[in-house]
Amino acid sequence: MPKRRLMAPGPTQVPEAARLALARQVTHHRTSAARATLAEVLDGLRYVFRTNNDVVVLACSGTGAMEAAVVNTVPRGGKAIVLEAGVFAKRWGDICEAFGIETIRHQAQWGSAIDPSDVAALLKKHPDVAAVFGTLMESSTGVGHHVEAIGKAIRSARSPNGAAPLWIVDGISGAGVMRCETDAWGIDVLVVGSQKALMLPPGLGILAVSEAAWQQMERIQPQAFYFNLLTHRKKLQGGSEGPDTPYTPAHTMIAALRENLQIIREHGIENIWARADVLSAATRAGIEALGLKVFAERPASGLTAVEFPAELDGATFLKRLEQRYGVKLAGGQGHLKGKIFRIAHLGALDELDVLSTLAAIELVLLELGVKVTFGSAGAAASRHLAANPLAPSPLVA
Amino acid sequence: MPKRRLMAPGPTQVPEAARLALARQVTHHRTSAARATLAEVLDGLRYVFRTNNDVVVLACSGTGAMEAAVVNTVPRGGKAIVLEAGVFAKRWGDICEAFGIETIRHQAQWGSAIDPSDVAALLKKHPDVAAVFGTLMESSTGVGHHVEAIGKAIRSARSPNGAAPLWIVDGISGAGVMRCETDAWGIDVLVVGSQKALMLPPGLGILAVSEAAWQQMERIQPQAFYFNLLTHRKKLQGGSEGPDTPYTPAHTMIAALRENLQIIREHGIENIWARADVLSAATRAGIEALGLKVFAERPASGLTAVEFPAELDGATFLKRLEQRYGVKLAGGQGHLKGKIFRIAHLGALDELDVLSTLAAIELVLLELGVKVTFGSAGAAASRHLAANPLAPSPLVA
Repeated sequence: MPKRRLMAPGPTQVPEAARLALARQVTHHRTSAARATLAEVLDGLRYVFRTNNDVVVLACSGTGAMEAAVVNTVPRGGKAIVLEAGVFAKRWGDICEAFGIETIRHQAQWGSAIDPSDVAALLKKHPDVAAVFGTLMESSTGVGHHVEAIGKAIRSARSPNGAAPLWIVDGISGAGVMRCETDAWGIDVLVVGSQKALMLPPGLGILAVSEAAWQQMERIQPQAFYFNLLTHRKKLQGGSEGPDTPYTPAHTMIAALRENLQIIREHGIENIWARADVLSAATRAGIEALGLKVFAERPASGLTAVEFPAELDGATFLKRLEQRYGVKLAGGQGHLKGKIFRIAHLGALDELDVLSTLAAIELVLLELGVKVTFGSAGAAASRHLAANPLAPSPLVA
Repeated sequence: MPKRRLMAPGPTQVPEAARLALARQVTHHRTSAARATLAEVLDGLRYVFRTNNDVVVLACSGTGAMEAAVVNTVPRGGKAIVLEAGVFAKRWGDICEAFGIETIRHQAQWGSAIDPSDVAALLKKHPDVAAVFGTLMESSTGVGHHVEAIGKAIRSARSPNGAAPLWIVDGISGAGVMRCETDAWGIDVLVVGSQKALMLPPGLGILAVSEAAWQQMERIQPQAFYFNLLTHRKKLQGGSEGPDTPYTPAHTMIAALRENLQIIREHGIENIWARADVLSAATRAGIEALGLKVFAERPASGLTAVEFPAELDGATFLKRLEQRYGVKLAGGQGHLKGKIFRIAHLGALDELDVLSTLAAIELVLLELGVKVTFGSAGAAASRHLAANPLAPSPLVA
């Protein structure tokens, strides 16, 4: 096996401090120490997501947290708009339909960004929707959506004293790497997973929930149990003893998350966003210097999706990169399978990871018969890096 | 902090091999290596649960897996019987009611074992139930229920070519420590959690699903998404490439579980059951020698619930045990709070753990003014251990 370089959009590399926390012997989960750890983690998550809202941590993967966002905010028989321009946005619609929700799927071309004015128009046509579901970084296409502007369109559509529709955003792969101002942008429920910018293994689903969303939940009384967020809130409020959970939490993961949140705080979330901007732009410069095309109309900061050249067999390319150089990129999903590949700039990755990935791409392209000029991708990326100097990254795996 | 001794019914101590697996750097979850690990783990789980049925591993805690068992087998508006004699059995009923299921709660006194003939009578009265929900080891009371006999009563109540009612058993804390013959006892869905006899941190929910249960799911078409087991089965069957999962699995936990399953297989599940029998009986002998009363009518093998003497403040006793000797026992739950305490014999615990726990109980009882004869608990327990010699345990944390 070659040296491994995980450059896919999740799971990302886990810092050593978190991995050592995961290796510690397990202690009981109903103790004052466990409550203190949870309290510290909730605070850290509020810092990362730029919110004063309640944060709920569930034992599940991202899709479970998406389900929690749906079943708690839209009643069976209620109505929702899904802004669908990729695999993960489509999943919002699938979840809604599984729970008997009338779902308006606003489908835009995959690779394009949803137009906020389309959302405004949709809301005029459907003033009775309980929530609009969208995506921060659509990791199937590499698009960063206009979450702030869509939030504005949704707020303007609310009646003066109405809270609906809620703005519910899948930030599973985006939050913590690309700018996301939960409160300032009016995000009522932000959904996040542990295995992306938070640099943990999969297994935690996280939701930041606004007061308007809590009120909507109280009105609709969710038909849910494990994912009933009202039950979780009751335990979170926990009185003088600090926050707790209704069911056994994945408390070793929560303890490991504390380690990563300390690193993130020390670095500063603004600095992490700025770093991802630079790494993403450098990658795009490198890709374009190779004559390849960036797929996304509005590329996310944290992920670059690239179209395969017509003459290249995508599966062979990805397999060779992984087997020869240990570079794990992601292929396309859904109808984009075989058409694009995806390079992440998420978590504990730095400038040299970007440059060595581009170098490996050059080597494998040539090997597979695509004409390349050695060093062209690296040169273009390095030029961007030199023009936008970063401090050494404290995010190290 | 004193040396820690986790003697509560979950989470249990995690063996070093599993903890080191959790500390390994994360790799991608959609690889042939990840599929091979999952396949090996599913095989190991079938071995532990004595089943040839399909096994599904979910990223959630035990309650999530209980919800999956409910929503997949009983339709909204359908009917279920819950055999309720403790906190966790009561949870079955709460989940059923949250999903609009007509729930017949057969309530027996907490501490007693459900009478199988009561189940037979109930099924005569309610021939239209889709499932009966019960418990292997009720960890709130320390009772081991008559799972085999209840399974027989349920099978006799089925029409000649009918599959319902299904027999669905919460084995979260019991499976892997007390005898549980999933197939021979006719258990259609066995639910298990990672943080008990499987000796992992919390975060995996596991279900073993019979063919009759799958058929029932296909008939009712569950209104579920994250927990829709039919979706999981499709990915499990995965064709020539081996089993996979529909959503991001907690694959680092699955890799750690492989380590523990190897230890369990080497020791042999029959030997683990026999060991738990001896440790449980030795503990009961020690407790009774102290003049205390075992709470459960039919004590589970793996957990001993003990009534507090009337003159003792339970909270002070448990706190002192933990703070002075690091011995973490569990108190009572629900209306048993302050009335009982619980000692687990689950996972990586051996004879000397049992004896030192009894010694600590003696010391703290005396400190709190309860008359004890030093060494009496240990003597009685040791007599049982000497009469029932065990090989050294390979289950070491």
